[in-house]
Amino acid sequence: MEVTNKYIVIKKHIEDAPKESHFEIKTEPFSLSLEPGSDNVIVKNLCISIDPYLINRMKSYSASHKSISITAPLTPGEAIDAIIIGKVVASGNAKFGKDDLVLGVFTWAEYSVVKEQNIIRKLESSEFPLTYHLGILGFSGLSAYAGFFEICKPQKGEKVFVSAASGSVGNIVGQYAKLLGCYVVGCAGSQKKVALLKEKLGFDDAFNYKEERDLNSTLKRYFPDGIDIYFDNVGGEMLEAAVANMKAFGRVSVCGVISEYTDAEKRASPNMIDVVYKRITIRGFLATDFLNVFAEFSTKTLDYLRNGQLEVIEDKSLGVESIPSAFVGLFNGDNVGKKVVVLAEE
Amino acid sequence: MEVTNKYIVIKKHIEDAPKESHFEIKTEPFSLSLEPGSDNVIVKNLCISIDPYLINRMKSYSASHKSISITAPLTPGEAIDAIIIGKVVASGNAKFGKDDLVLGVFTWAEYSVVKEQNIIRKLESSEFPLTYHLGILGFSGLSAYAGFFEICKPQKGEKVFVSAASGSVGNIVGQYAKLLGCYVVGCAGSQKKVALLKEKLGFDDAFNYKEERDLNSTLKRYFPDGIDIYFDNVGGEMLEAAVANMKAFGRVSVCGVISEYTDAEKRASPNMIDVVYKRITIRGFLATDFLNVFAEFSTKTLDYLRNGQLEVIEDKSLGVESIPSAFVGLFNGDNVGKKVVVLAEE
Repeated sequence: MEVTNKYIVIKKHIEDAPKESHFEIKTEPFSLSLEPGSDNVIVKNLCISIDPYLINRMKSYSASHKSISITAPLTPGEAIDAIIIGKVVASGNAKFGKDDLVLGVFTWAEYSVVKEQNIIRKLESSEFPLTYHLGILGFSGLSAYAGFFEICKPQKGEKVFVSAASGSVGNIVGQYAKLLGCYVVGCAGSQKKVALLKEKLGFDDAFNYKEERDLNSTLKRYFPDGIDIYFDNVGGEMLEAAVANMKAFGRVSVCGVISEYTDAEKRASPNMIDVVYKRITIRGFLATDFLNVFAEFSTKTLDYLRNGQLEVIEDKSLGVESIPSAFVGLFNGDNVGKKVVVLAEE
Repeated sequence: MEVTNKYIVIKKHIEDAPKESHFEIKTEPFSLSLEPGSDNVIVKNLCISIDPYLINRMKSYSASHKSISITAPLTPGEAIDAIIIGKVVASGNAKFGKDDLVLGVFTWAEYSVVKEQNIIRKLESSEFPLTYHLGILGFSGLSAYAGFFEICKPQKGEKVFVSAASGSVGNIVGQYAKLLGCYVVGCAGSQKKVALLKEKLGFDDAFNYKEERDLNSTLKRYFPDGIDIYFDNVGGEMLEAAVANMKAFGRVSVCGVISEYTDAEKRASPNMIDVVYKRITIRGFLATDFLNVFAEFSTKTLDYLRNGQLEVIEDKSLGVESIPSAFVGLFNGDNVGKKVVVLAEE
C-alpha cells in the first residue's frame, strides 16, 4: 500500500533566529511495505520531541556538529531526524513486530523508514501518556536528573537557581531540587510562567527576567546569601549574573545556552576572577553521556509520578504541519513545559 | 635594641595596571624586643614571594576580598601581608625560638611582628635553597600540583596546554605533565622564554603569544587533534581560544587570569556552545583548598628534585626597595619562573 508522506526540511542553513519561512513541508509517495530482504522497520510517527538544540544542527557550523550522532549537522532539503515515538507499521526485523511502540531517532515526518540502530528502545504500554517518554521520562527528564544530581552534587538546603525554569528541562530540575529540600528560584519570560512556577510547581520564588533591568541586582535580591547551584539553560547575561552571585564552591551545570544559539553576540563573559576566588565549577553536559544512570533516574521519577510528587507540564501541537511553528516558538518563549507535536493517536 | 624598619605600602587602591609610583617605601623605628607578656614573634624577613594575585587585594573591589584571609583587601598606607620566609629574632611564644626559620603570612618589610596564627610552619634547615619553599616546594608548587592532578585528572598521553608557561606555576605544571607522559605545549611572552620551555624544561613545543595574530588558529596549529587539558593562568582571549580548541571532555583548570586582573575589558567570552557539546569543565581553584594533598605533593616533588627530574626556575631581586618593581614586573612579563625578593641571607 502506498500513502502520501509529509515531511519537513530546512530550505537552507539557518544562521540566526529560525522563522517558519526557513522550513518547507514536502510530500512524497511512500510505500507501507518494505523491499523484500530489508531488515528495516517502517514507523508511523505518533509524537515528536521539539528541542532547541536542533537549531545548532541547522547551522552551517556549530560545535554540535562534531559532538554526537543526534547533534550532527542537517542537510537542507533532507528529512530532519529527532527523538520520536512511533508505531511499527511493517518490520523486516525480527526484533520488532507490527504495532510495537518504539522510541528512537526518526524523522520529522508522518512516516519514517528506520534502521535497527536508530531505535533506542521499545515502549511497553505505559500507565502514563506516551508523550511522557519524550519529556519527564525521556531525555528532558534525564537531562534534568543528570545535570542536577550528577553534575551539581546538590545537598539538602542548598540554594538553587534555574533559568528557563518553565521549559522542558528547567521545570523538572526545579521540582527535583524541591524534592531534595533545596531552596529554588526560577526565572522565565512571562508572568503566566512565573505564576506556574510558584503556584503549581512549588518553586520558592520566581521572576520574569524580561521585567528586570539589571540581572546582577535581581539575583542579589533573590539570593542575598548567594547561589550554590545554577542550572543554566540560557547562557548570556544570565550566566554572567549567576556567576557574580555564586557562593564559594558554587557549581554551574550548563545544559543549554538558548540565548546564544541564535545570537553569537550574546556570548557570556562570566567574571573569571569570581571563578577563581569562589572556586566555581562550570560544566557542560549532554544527557546521552548519562545513560548509565537511566535506570536509576527512571525508577525514581516513576515513583515520584505515581506518588503525585511531580507535576508534568506539556505543551502539545497537532499535526506535521505544526512542526515548524512549534520549533520556532521555542525561541520566542511560546512553549510552557515540554514541547511535543502529536501526529497521531496511539 | 631598636632598628629602622623599611616597609612597603600602597598609596591608594590600584584599579588597573600597577606602577611603581603606586607604592611607597616607609620607615619606622622598630624594636627588636617584645613587650613583656607578649606571645608574638619578631621575624627578620629573608625572602618574599611575589605573586600576581596581590593586585586583586590592592583594588577597591574584587571577588578576592571575600574569599580567604590571604586574599583579603589591603588598606592603603598599611603594611602588605604576603607569604614570606623569615628568621625569628625574638619570641614570646614557646613554640618558636630565636633563629628558627619560619614560613608564614608576614609583611613586605625588613622586620615583622607576627602572631602565632600567621606562622604556617617552621622550616628545618633544608637540602635545598630556602627560596624553594616559596616556589616549587611552596604554594606555587602546590598550585601546579593540585590544579593539574586534582582538578584535571590527567592521563598519560593527553594533550596539555599551559599559558604563562614560564611563570611560577606554569613552568611546574608543564614539567609535571611531561613527567606523567603528556604532550605539553606552553605559551609565553618572549623568544627567550619560549627557548627556555623547549630547551631546558622539556616542553614538546612552545610559542610566543605576542607574535601570534589569531590565537584560535595558533592553538589549532599546535593541537591539530585538540586539547585535553588547559591550565589557565591568563584568562582573556587565550581562554577563549583554548575552549574553541578543546576536545570532548576537556578540562580547564583556572589558576589565575592575569590578563583580566588589570583590565576588566579583557574578560573572556568562552563559547558556551563548545562547553555544552564538548562537555567541557572549567574550574577555578585556590591552592589553599588542597592542603590535604600537601604531604603527597611535597614527597613527590622532593623526590623529583633529588633525582634531578625537575628544573627550578627562580627570578630574584634584592632588597626591600626592589619589591615594588619586582611586583610591577609580573604584569609586564619581566619575570622568568618564580619571582622572589631576597632581603637577607640566612
